[in-house]
Amino acid sequence: MAERITPQSTDYSQWYLDVIREAELADYGPVRGTMVIRPYGYAIWEAVRDTLDDMFKATGHHNAYFPMFIPMSFLEREREHVEGFSPELAVVTHGGGKELTEPLVVRPTSETIINYMFADWIQSYRDLPLLINQWANVVRWELRTRPFLRTLEFLWQEGHTAHATAEEAEEEALRMLDVYRDFATEWAAVPVVPGRKTEREKFAGAVRSYTIEAIMGDGRALQSATSHNLGQNFAKAFGIEFLDEGNELRHAWQTSWGLSTRFVGAIIMTHGDDQGLRLPPRLAPIQLVVVPIWRTDEQRAEVMAAVGTILEALDDVRVHVDDRDQRPGWKFNEWEMRGVPLRLEIGPRDLEAGTVVLSRRDTGDKITVAQSELQSEVPRLLGEIQAGLLAQAEERLAERTSTASDYEELQSLVAEGGFVRAYWDGTSDDEARIQDECGATIRCIPFTQPDEPGPCVYTGRMTGTQVLFAKAY
Amino acid sequence: MAERITPQSTDYSQWYLDVIREAELADYGPVRGTMVIRPYGYAIWEAVRDTLDDMFKATGHHNAYFPMFIPMSFLEREREHVEGFSPELAVVTHGGGKELTEPLVVRPTSETIINYMFADWIQSYRDLPLLINQWANVVRWELRTRPFLRTLEFLWQEGHTAHATAEEAEEEALRMLDVYRDFATEWAAVPVVPGRKTEREKFAGAVRSYTIEAIMGDGRALQSATSHNLGQNFAKAFGIEFLDEGNELRHAWQTSWGLSTRFVGAIIMTHGDDQGLRLPPRLAPIQLVVVPIWRTDEQRAEVMAAVGTILEALDDVRVHVDDRDQRPGWKFNEWEMRGVPLRLEIGPRDLEAGTVVLSRRDTGDKITVAQSELQSEVPRLLGEIQAGLLAQAEERLAERTSTASDYEELQSLVAEGGFVRAYWDGTSDDEARIQDECGATIRCIPFTQPDEPGPCVYTGRMTGTQVLFAKAY
Repeated sequence: MAERITPQSTDYSQWYLDVIREAELADYGPVRGTMVIRPYGYAIWEAVRDTLDDMFKATGHHNAYFPMFIPMSFLEREREHVEGFSPELAVVTHGGGKELTEPLVVRPTSETIINYMFADWIQSYRDLPLLINQWANVVRWELRTRPFLRTLEFLWQEGHTAHATAEEAEEEALRMLDVYRDFATEWAAVPVVPGRKTEREKFAGAVRSYTIEAIMGDGRALQSATSHNLGQNFAKAFGIEFLDEGNELRHAWQTSWGLSTRFVGAIIMTHGDDQGLRLPPRLAPIQLVVVPIWRTDEQRAEVMAAVGTILEALDDVRVHVDDRDQRPGWKFNEWEMRGVPLRLEIGPRDLEAGTVVLSRRDTGDKITVAQSELQSEVPRLLGEIQAGLLAQAEERLAERTSTASDYEELQSLVAEGGFVRAYWDGTSDDEARIQDECGATIRCIPFTQPDEPGPCVYTGRMTGTQVLFAKAY
Repeated sequence: MAERITPQSTDYSQWYLDVIREAELADYGPVRGTMVIRPYGYAIWEAVRDTLDDMFKATGHHNAYFPMFIPMSFLEREREHVEGFSPELAVVTHGGGKELTEPLVVRPTSETIINYMFADWIQSYRDLPLLINQWANVVRWELRTRPFLRTLEFLWQEGHTAHATAEEAEEEALRMLDVYRDFATEWAAVPVVPGRKTEREKFAGAVRSYTIEAIMGDGRALQSATSHNLGQNFAKAFGIEFLDEGNELRHAWQTSWGLSTRFVGAIIMTHGDDQGLRLPPRLAPIQLVVVPIWRTDEQRAEVMAAVGTILEALDDVRVHVDDRDQRPGWKFNEWEMRGVPLRLEIGPRDLEAGTVVLSRRDTGDKITVAQSELQSEVPRLLGEIQAGLLAQAEERLAERTSTASDYEELQSLVAEGGFVRAYWDGTSDDEARIQDECGATIRCIPFTQPDEPGPCVYTGRMTGTQVLFAKAY
C-alpha cells in the first residue's frame, strides 16, 4: 500500500493526491474541477459537520435552507460583493426548455438571497438577533482546482446573522471565530492562528473579516474558516430595517461565517505521513479497527467469539471489524493508510493469554493489553493519540513560525515555508507587490500583538502592528 | 392565531398554505417556484433525515457526494431517462465568464453521474454490492409548484446500489421500500399502501418502480417515496461491468430509491387540523412546550425554579420553555398552531399543589399530573399521542378506500376523493384516457391482491389484478 504513496519529501503535492486516491477519500468528477466525495471522505466530513452543528446549536443558531438559484440582479446590489464574485459565477440561462428572461446565478455564497429574505422577516427589535445557519453546496468557477482545497462545487456551512447593534454583530463574528478555533484545535487537532484579514484579503462586502490560519505539513498556510462582520452593507443593499425599542427605524447589523470541505484537506495535510492518513480520534469515522487472526476454521470461531465480547465492552468506541479473507499484513497497511488511530490484533495465542495487541497509528507503538482492561485502556489511548497529534502539530506550527525584520529576510524566510511574522504598515498595493515578488500573502493580523513597536518590514515606518505572511493554499 | 388559518372545510388548499405561513415552515423564494425552508420547517426535515439516515446505515449503506453539474450528454445515454427528464432541466451555459463548450445540466436525479463513477469503482464481484446514499438538492423545472409538494429545487436523499445478480437488486428495491414504509408508519404516523407502479407511472429508466402511497386530509393521494429496480439499463448505458466468481464479465444489476422534502407536506396534510399542525412526537422538533404562568416577579422566580427541576426530570424529551413576555393564551394558540404534541402549564397554584397541567395537542384533553410523575407520564403520553395519530390516520385511510366495479362507479368514487380499488387489465393508453376523463391516475398495484379474479373496471376483461386509483398531488 505505502509504496503507492509518493513520500512527502519527494513531492508533497503528489503525496496529497496519492493519499486521497489510495484512502478512497475522493475522486475526480466528469466535469473539470468537480470532485466526488467517496464514502470514507464523506464520513470525515459528516464528523466535521455533526460536531460543528452541535456547536452552532449550542450557541443559539438554527438551520434553514435557501434556494441555490439567485437572480443575477441580487448580486449587483452590493458593489464590492459583485466585483468579488463575478469572475467565478456559474450561470443558468435555460430552464424547462426555455431561455430565462433573467439569468440565474448558482450561489457562490448566500448573503444576497438570505438578506433578501431577512428584509421580510425582520420588522422589530423583537425579531433580533436572527441567528441562521445553512449547510449547502456552493459553486465557484475555479480554474486551478485541487481535491477538497479548491473545487468548482464544494460543501460548506454558512452562518448568517442580524443584530440590533454594531457591538452585538462584532461579538457574534468573534464568537463564531472562537467556535471554529475551538473545533479546529480540540476536535481536529489542527492548531490555528486567529486574526483579522487585511483590507486586501477581506471578504467582498464585509467591514472586517476574521480568519483562523493553519500551517500544513509542507509549510504552506491554509485558511481554515472565516467570520465576517458585514456592518450594515447588506442591510442597506437589501433594506433590512427594524423598529428599535425607541420606535426608530434602523438598519440591522450583520455577520456571516463559513467552514467548508476544504477543512478535510487541512486534516489530511496537518497529520498525514508517508504511510498515509492519520486521523484525530475525535473525528475518525473508525476509531479502532479489529484485525482477527486465524489459520483454521476452529480458530476463526474462537477468535470471533472473543471479538464479540470485546465489541460489547467497547460500545462507546467507533469500531470496525475487518474479517475479510485477506492477509493480516495487507489489512494492517490498509488501515494505517486510512489513518485509523488504533488497531487491535487478536489471534489464538492472545486467546490463551487473555490479551490483545494494540497498535497506535500516531507513534507505531505496539502494546499488549489484557482483554479485561480494554474498556478503560482504549478510551485512554484514544485520548493520548488525540493529544499527541495536537502536540506534534503545535510543535510544527512553532518551528515553522519565524520573524523577519527586513524585506530581504522576509523573502528568504517565506521561500523556506511557514509563517513569517513581521511589522507591517504597508498599503494594499504593497501587499500586491509582495505577492508578485515572493508569492506570499498576509494571512492575518494576529490577535496577539507585540508590546513594542518596530519598523514595517516593507516601508520601514514604525508601527505597533505585526502581520503573518505565508505562501498559502 | 387560528383565525388566520382558513378552515379545511372551506378551502383545503388555502388551509395548507396558511399553515405553512403561520407556523413559519417555509416561504416563497425570489425565483418563481423556489422555496425557502424556515428553521421550524427545516427542523422537521432534519428529524426525517436523521431518522432515515440511521435506517440506511443500519442496512449497510454509506453516504457519499457527487457533483450536481452533469454533462448534457450523460442524460442522453439512457433513452427513457432523457425523455423523462428533458422537459424539466435547468441548464448552465456559462461558467467563469465564458460560454461552456458543453452545457451542464443541474441534476434532476443522479443516476447518470453516479453510474458513470460506478463504472470506475466496480471491477470484480468483490466490489459488490455497492450501497451508496446521497443527501442533496435537485432541480426540476416545474411550472405548477406548491411548497414542499412540488418545488423547482428540493432536498432529498437518493440511494444508488449495484449488485451481482438480478435477485439481489430486486431484494434491495423491496427492502428499501420496506424501510420507507416502516419510517412512514412508525415515525411519521403516516399509513401508506405499498405497491408497484404501472408501466405508465414508473421511473424513467427503471424496469420496475415501487411506491408507498398515502392519503391526505382532503382525500387526495400523495406518493411518499419510491424505490426502483433499474435492471441492467444504466449498467449497459455506462458500462458497469464486473468479473464474477467464475471470471466472466457481467453487467451489474441496480436500484435507486428516494424520499424528499415533499414528505414534510405529507406530515402536514395527514395530521393537520383547523388549529394548524399536529406533529407526530417521534419527529417533532419540540415534543413538549412549557408555558410558565406568573403575575409578580416573585411568582416568576418560584415558577421558573420549579421549571428547572422539571427540565432535569425530562432530559430525554425535546423540551422548549416559552418564557417570553406574552399572554399565556397567545402562547397556547401559537404552539397549538405549530403542532407541539404536549403543552405543560405551571403557575403559582400548581406549585402549591405540586402538580402541573398537561394539554394534548391531538385530543385537546387537559390532564393534571403530579410533578413527581412527569418523568414517566410525559413519555407515556407522547407514546399515546404517536399511536393515536397513527390510528386516526389509519381510520381515514380505511374510510377513504372504496371499491369500484365498473367505470361509472370509478368516476363517481374518484370524484369523492380517496383511493378507489378496482380490477385492472387496461393499457397505458387506457390509463391516459381515464386521467383525462376523471383526473385520476393509478397510484399503484398494491402488494395485497384479491384471491378471486374479477372484470377489469375499464375493459371488462377478467383479471386477477387490482389497482388503486386516486386523484393525486
